[in-house]
Amino acid sequence: MSGYTFYRRAYRAFNDYPSLTKLALVFTVSGGGLVAYSDARPFGGAYADAIQADHKKKKVVVLGTGWAGTSFLKNLKDPSYEVQVVSPRNYFAFTPLLPSVTVGTVEARSVVEPVRNIVKKKGLDVKFREAECLNIDAVNKKVHCRSSQDTNLGGEENFTVDYDYLVVAMGARANTFNTPGVVENAHFLKVSLVSSKNWLCVATLHENAFFMQEVEDAQRIRRTVIDCFERATLPTISEEEKKRILHFVVVGGGPTGVEFAAELHDFVTEDLAKHYLCTASGSRVNSHQRSRTTRFWFDKRITAFAEEKFQRDGIDLKTGSMVVKVTDKEISTKERATGENRSIPYGMVVWSTGIGTRPVVMDFMKQIGQGNRRVLATDEWLRVEGCDSIYALGDCATINQRKVMEDIMAIFSKADKIQSGTLTVADFKDVINDICERYPQVEIYLKEKQLKNFVELLKNYQGNAQKEIIDIELFKAALSEVDTQMKNLPATAQVAAQQGAYLANCFNRMEACEKNPEGPLRFRGSGRHRFRPFRNLMPGNLMAEVQAFWAICSTGWRTNSSSTSWRLGFNRPQHPVALVFSLCKQTSQLAHTGAGDI
Amino acid sequence: MSGYTFYRRAYRAFNDYPSLTKLALVFTVSGGGLVAYSDARPFGGAYADAIQADHKKKKVVVLGTGWAGTSFLKNLKDPSYEVQVVSPRNYFAFTPLLPSVTVGTVEARSVVEPVRNIVKKKGLDVKFREAECLNIDAVNKKVHCRSSQDTNLGGEENFTVDYDYLVVAMGARANTFNTPGVVENAHFLKVSLVSSKNWLCVATLHENAFFMQEVEDAQRIRRTVIDCFERATLPTISEEEKKRILHFVVVGGGPTGVEFAAELHDFVTEDLAKHYLCTASGSRVNSHQRSRTTRFWFDKRITAFAEEKFQRDGIDLKTGSMVVKVTDKEISTKERATGENRSIPYGMVVWSTGIGTRPVVMDFMKQIGQGNRRVLATDEWLRVEGCDSIYALGDCATINQRKVMEDIMAIFSKADKIQSGTLTVADFKDVINDICERYPQVEIYLKEKQLKNFVELLKNYQGNAQKEIIDIELFKAALSEVDTQMKNLPATAQVAAQQGAYLANCFNRMEACEKNPEGPLRFRGSGRHRFRPFRNLMPGNLMAEVQAFWAICSTGWRTNSSSTSWRLGFNRPQHPVALVFSLCKQTSQLAHTGAGDI
Repeated sequence: MSGYTFYRRAYRAFNDYPSLTKLALVFTVSGGGLVAYSDARPFGGAYADAIQADHKKKKVVVLGTGWAGTSFLKNLKDPSYEVQVVSPRNYFAFTPLLPSVTVGTVEARSVVEPVRNIVKKKGLDVKFREAECLNIDAVNKKVHCRSSQDTNLGGEENFTVDYDYLVVAMGARANTFNTPGVVENAHFLKVSLVSSKNWLCVATLHENAFFMQEVEDAQRIRRTVIDCFERATLPTISEEEKKRILHFVVVGGGPTGVEFAAELHDFVTEDLAKHYLCTASGSRVNSHQRSRTTRFWFDKRITAFAEEKFQRDGIDLKTGSMVVKVTDKEISTKERATGENRSIPYGMVVWSTGIGTRPVVMDFMKQIGQGNRRVLATDEWLRVEGCDSIYALGDCATINQRKVMEDIMAIFSKADKIQSGTLTVADFKDVINDICERYPQVEIYLKEKQLKNFVELLKNYQGNAQKEIIDIELFKAALSEVDTQMKNLPATAQVAAQQGAYLANCFNRMEACEKNPEGPLRFRGSGRHRFRPFRNLMPGNLMAEVQAFWAICSTGWRTNSSSTSWRLGFNRPQHPVALVFSLCKQTSQLAHTGAGDI
Repeated sequence: MSGYTFYRRAYRAFNDYPSLTKLALVFTVSGGGLVAYSDARPFGGAYADAIQADHKKKKVVVLGTGWAGTSFLKNLKDPSYEVQVVSPRNYFAFTPLLPSVTVGTVEARSVVEPVRNIVKKKGLDVKFREAECLNIDAVNKKVHCRSSQDTNLGGEENFTVDYDYLVVAMGARANTFNTPGVVENAHFLKVSLVSSKNWLCVATLHENAFFMQEVEDAQRIRRTVIDCFERATLPTISEEEKKRILHFVVVGGGPTGVEFAAELHDFVTEDLAKHYLCTASGSRVNSHQRSRTTRFWFDKRITAFAEEKFQRDGIDLKTGSMVVKVTDKEISTKERATGENRSIPYGMVVWSTGIGTRPVVMDFMKQIGQGNRRVLATDEWLRVEGCDSIYALGDCATINQRKVMEDIMAIFSKADKIQSGTLTVADFKDVINDICERYPQVEIYLKEKQLKNFVELLKNYQGNAQKEIIDIELFKAALSEVDTQMKNLPATAQVAAQQGAYLANCFNRMEACEKNPEGPLRFRGSGRHRFRPFRNLMPGNLMAEVQAFWAICSTGWRTNSSSTSWRLGFNRPQHPVALVFSLCKQTSQLAHTGAGDI
């Protein structure tokens, strides 16, 4: 699992050394470009604005303190906003490390940071409310919230906050694909409502599967693994029952699922085996994947390596079948090829099969006519479609990219200044950059086709004829395939953090860009867009690859693993030397595997 | 509160360096004598026995893994027993540090050790069952147990274990003196039944007060303190309500209560104040003591120092009144002197007013005719009165010392070998040591009266007459006041651990002492007692004194206090340097205060 050292290094910087924060962000989060960019405007300037703007402070409400929300808060510099943060968690959790927390290789306290520490910035007016968002009222620009506290503090408390700008970064909940028995929805809602309490357990009594979203989830999983072993050692347990209890099933082959399976395998075979001699031998880890999902996530080499390594370690990897039902003691699967049904008795099942929609987000989507979608649709500036003062980022949103073919006429006529109906290549010179910026798919397409630039693309379609004239038909033909290059961004921490930083930067430069817009041409309208559209600066899924890669190739290697069998579930603190060692190990192995170029 | 460094040093040794374990025990736990003593018999000998005894292995069942039970297991060496440990916690908790865990100065993981680590000894046959003891059947020598696990592991599981020897070390539960509203008993039972689960929260929803017995309790208290602050920052909370929420009440002036009050004060004024600027100013800590209990526990100097320091720090110390009722938002007190009633609104109340009887122990006491007692009565060999193969130690038991005056005739006639009806001082020479060993109060009395020895005591009563003859009346007169020196041992970790070590040592030497009894003369019967009776080797309550002393004089000093405002509630790991520093600080201050002689 030493993948975590990669994050830990980043996170420690992100966390312990405020002075390095920007550096850390460059490294772990925003990919750097945006950060450098956000520095373009000196801090002093912001204060100057503040003084003018103070009488009309704009209210910004941020929902959520995950990667997107926290990154937004971290990068917001303009003191001319009155910011309120509403979240059920008063801390930010470094989620890529959760699988390691489940087995105690990393401690919970090492992967969190209080929101108040993060927003504590000179001159910024940020208030944090520990509460759930119940409902977004886009019409009256209000958010209805509820804080649920222990009863002897006065019970639940409803309140409303007004906003001028709303930043929706509430993330997603685990996606069960409505598989029967994974979770009773009523209870699941309860979990998400009180996820900042240790009431979680109340809800989990009615769940059959565990998820891995919050730090508490990771701790609960750890407790349950130990529960299984304690139970297996009871005198009344039959051999068959023992087999069942010590059978751990992981559903889902994404980075989290893969890493957790590897972590769990280590934990069981190395740590628990020491404490529960009699029983550990019987334990099995079963990684169940709907399809070869790892292929979807990772480079083929890594997938192959993972599968081969799992087999070698005795992790039973099942692909090509789907889970159709979960009861309290059995999980039923259906072979996709043969349609044959099997049922597997288990002791604990961890469900990590991608993301689903939070009820509150779903309500909001219905309200704004997006009810048929899975996540909120935004434009390239992260504005929720249909409501311009609401922004959505992270796992609860996706960017609905504009198709070139939709705007093809507009683009053509923008280029054709004299409305001649035809264009020379020269005519394009002025608009090419705007086209590429407004429609990122164009550049990707050019790369794909190994064309130097847009002009070359057009030339290809002029055939042998040497005429320099392009008409609309030729233009359409040339761009007809460009939109095939559009891809949704993956729902990763990396993207969420980049979006948060990007949006904060837009807010920092709101007034400046009002006066001097810096975005591309408006092809349909007139003038320019205020900001450049959001770009994912590290395409692909490197973070996830590295994470899972380390999860796998470090199976069987740990920095420490003592004191693992007690219920509260923490290990000894990791020794600095071990940390350094793990960093070196990581670097060298990256080099060996040719992944050294990250 | 750097008192904890005292324990941490001890505990770390106890914990991290198995090789030092004995040393650590000498220091923190058994006071050394017993340990050295338990070494008297070489390990090899035990094996030799084992081989003979193997065909008839005696079944020993240990209930509980607190100080007493763990110390027993740690010191048991004779492999000729088949040991089963039944406890709801699969770890040992270093309880004196709990107050520090509540504020994150010490981390939970630092104060626990898995039972399996502790019992992992070559050649010993120890099985651990994570379960509650439901009922002790002394007639059939059975213990009925129930393991309560998460439902999807199969729910509750009842089983029975047989014993030849039963060691009852189940500790005590918090004592509410049946003050209405502190806790609903039904729920309280639930707490104690499931204390190894994170279900605790289910029960606490019905409690108004918090206790401090388990590590989970400490973590819950921490979460609640932070809850209070989060709630106080909500926009809808009135000033008055805020005052209430941020009013923390500690009931009980024992070491735990005092240390917790001091810890909480630091936590609130130093750490939380940083994060909750707006609110912290309003917060108050109120230490409520039924009477000047600190006097009962501590040296007067320390009590005075504590009270004075509390006042200086603005901890509102109330003495001489008693709590008569607790509701979800108010605590009602009655002045003892004036009888006047007051009610104090609070946000959180922590109840630490001594120990009460666990329901299962109470049932057992009724069963054996001790129903009118608060804790189990044992003889000086820790055998429960009325059932010879059951031993009880720690907080659930107390030693019922034999009065000299009860046995006065027997003692006299043992000394009077020729039954002359009178004795010379010389006649006593043979029995004096036995008397002093059998009736520890005699020695204490001699010290009190500053008499060199027993003979001198008798001489005092011979008056001027120089006759060397003592008759029964004179003898009675001489010893008449001895029994006033009998004291119950305090319910401390120190005593529990000493008893555990003592009993383990008796078990180690069972057979040997069967052949050559080493105890004092049986004055009523014939022959000698098999073992020496239990002696508290560190009379007084030094541990508690030092603990509380450090809690107080270190108020305002911490090794680290960052990252305190997030719900899971742990601090950064303590830096080694800080630890060293704190150790030096402690040593030097001990010297200053003349407590340097520990």
